[in-house]
Amino acid sequence: MGRVLVALGGNALQRAGGHGTWPEQVAQMRSTAAVLATLVVDGEELIITHGNGPQVGTLLRQNELAERELPRRPMDVLGAETQGQIGYLIEQELTAALVRAKVPRTVLALVSRTAVSRKDRAFKHPDKPVGRYYTEAEARTLRKRESWEMEYDGARGGWRRVVPSPEPLRWIEGEGLRRLLPHGWGAHIVPVVTGGGGVPVIETSQGTYEGVEAVIDKDRTAALVAATLGADTLVILTDVPAAAVGFRKPWEKWLGEVRAKEMETYLQRGEFGEGSMGPKVEASLRFLRTGGHRAIITDPPSLARAMRNETGTRIVPD
Amino acid sequence: MGRVLVALGGNALQRAGGHGTWPEQVAQMRSTAAVLATLVVDGEELIITHGNGPQVGTLLRQNELAERELPRRPMDVLGAETQGQIGYLIEQELTAALVRAKVPRTVLALVSRTAVSRKDRAFKHPDKPVGRYYTEAEARTLRKRESWEMEYDGARGGWRRVVPSPEPLRWIEGEGLRRLLPHGWGAHIVPVVTGGGGVPVIETSQGTYEGVEAVIDKDRTAALVAATLGADTLVILTDVPAAAVGFRKPWEKWLGEVRAKEMETYLQRGEFGEGSMGPKVEASLRFLRTGGHRAIITDPPSLARAMRNETGTRIVPD
Repeated sequence: MGRVLVALGGNALQRAGGHGTWPEQVAQMRSTAAVLATLVVDGEELIITHGNGPQVGTLLRQNELAERELPRRPMDVLGAETQGQIGYLIEQELTAALVRAKVPRTVLALVSRTAVSRKDRAFKHPDKPVGRYYTEAEARTLRKRESWEMEYDGARGGWRRVVPSPEPLRWIEGEGLRRLLPHGWGAHIVPVVTGGGGVPVIETSQGTYEGVEAVIDKDRTAALVAATLGADTLVILTDVPAAAVGFRKPWEKWLGEVRAKEMETYLQRGEFGEGSMGPKVEASLRFLRTGGHRAIITDPPSLARAMRNETGTRIVPD
Repeated sequence: MGRVLVALGGNALQRAGGHGTWPEQVAQMRSTAAVLATLVVDGEELIITHGNGPQVGTLLRQNELAERELPRRPMDVLGAETQGQIGYLIEQELTAALVRAKVPRTVLALVSRTAVSRKDRAFKHPDKPVGRYYTEAEARTLRKRESWEMEYDGARGGWRRVVPSPEPLRWIEGEGLRRLLPHGWGAHIVPVVTGGGGVPVIETSQGTYEGVEAVIDKDRTAALVAATLGADTLVILTDVPAAAVGFRKPWEKWLGEVRAKEMETYLQRGEFGEGSMGPKVEASLRFLRTGGHRAIITDPPSLARAMRNETGTRIVPD
């Protein structure tokens, strides 16, 4: 069998329409973990990465509500906190699922940093909305007081902070870790890495790192991690069973096995939403370009069948 | 040279009398990291662990101030978040200090859980105060609504929540990690583990783990970690240069090199404060009983000299 990197996003961690309580997150992760355990039973070596959008949003809001009494922490720090929070959740639930499935492993969550470049054009054009909605007056104040970049969201009729979303260049802890791991480590541990895409840091000319307030697309970082740790399959878990062309149009067509070249054409044509399916397809194509054998886009209930090439979108080399 | 486990507490992370801002924490950690780097220059293999008291206090208070809008997260989860936060801080500053000292290493912070027993008597007698002070009326409400155990602090004239402080029995990720690491790993990585003593979890009869609202003494866990990863020196960094008998009395005497038996006598006699130096001495003695060669209690400025046996309290086997 192979080595599989699974990127958990959206509903794999937090149920849509819930209240965001901890027991809800535990229940959601428990059902996802049961699915992940079946992969290990089938002989796969697992690596896990995950998003952190809703969790960082909660920490930003708590920092805001408490700021009269306690100083806010910057976004890079809050990102690291979500790696602790979600890493612990995955350690707990995946350890349990693997014990129940009689394939025990040490689930090991690492605090991960990802290098980005100061010259990345994203720093000139911040466009990734984070946190809550504000009124126009609040937006004006925040722009002045905090030097935040603010953007109007017509659909919701409110203002939001936007931060840069630069390209991930290197997973800082990755090289060191890889050189240490003995052959066949996948039979013993399940690493949980680069949560939220990794904490974004910029390398200085002295070879040290500075944290920055930005977000990194977790699926893009996943493609990097896959190359570093030698995964042959990348699984991007989301809330739909597959990618589609003509999504929600009369000519909608769900995609099964697709060659990279064909997928590239759909991507260029703008078939996939910019903030949703687009980055997933793009990360999948990157992964194949760096030697990956197969990228799967599906939801947790379909994962086991998608691994057997029976459902989900499977992108394969030309 | 040897393998050294350093436990960072108190002022190693947060300057007393500061405002608790992030730049303050960075500055404090930067100066501690410079000291730690000198150990690596001298050929030592480093392992780091750290406390999280002030940081968990901040998260508890932010959760409280925001609770009308966002559900609180339990204490075990907040503990995991501080591991992410402080783990990131140590990765950043220690990586930089090691680069500056020309002994680069991969600093690797792990989200760590520590098993405790449901039968531990601490669960019957919670006695570790956490979070802020409350009025008597608030204390009554919290006792009812949240089922919190509350205790009056005469010195400060207020009520505080008290939680159990059980014995650490096992560092869950430790065994798996140790079996993986190749010989001589200390020349390549500096692991950062069991922050805040590790997230406390209870093993169920099915072999899975449940998080609990409790705190674990970080120095007690440090003794466990030292045994698991084979450290020969345990360093407990605190805000005084050494332990003393007759502390702040006319007959005060600072301790240099002391045999375990002598230290045990002082401990029994109640020479060391229960919430402060006592647990550090106790953890040091435990470490020597499990095969440790030397336990050092000192502050960051004295560390380099303490390692050369020139200052600080050094406890050695009988």
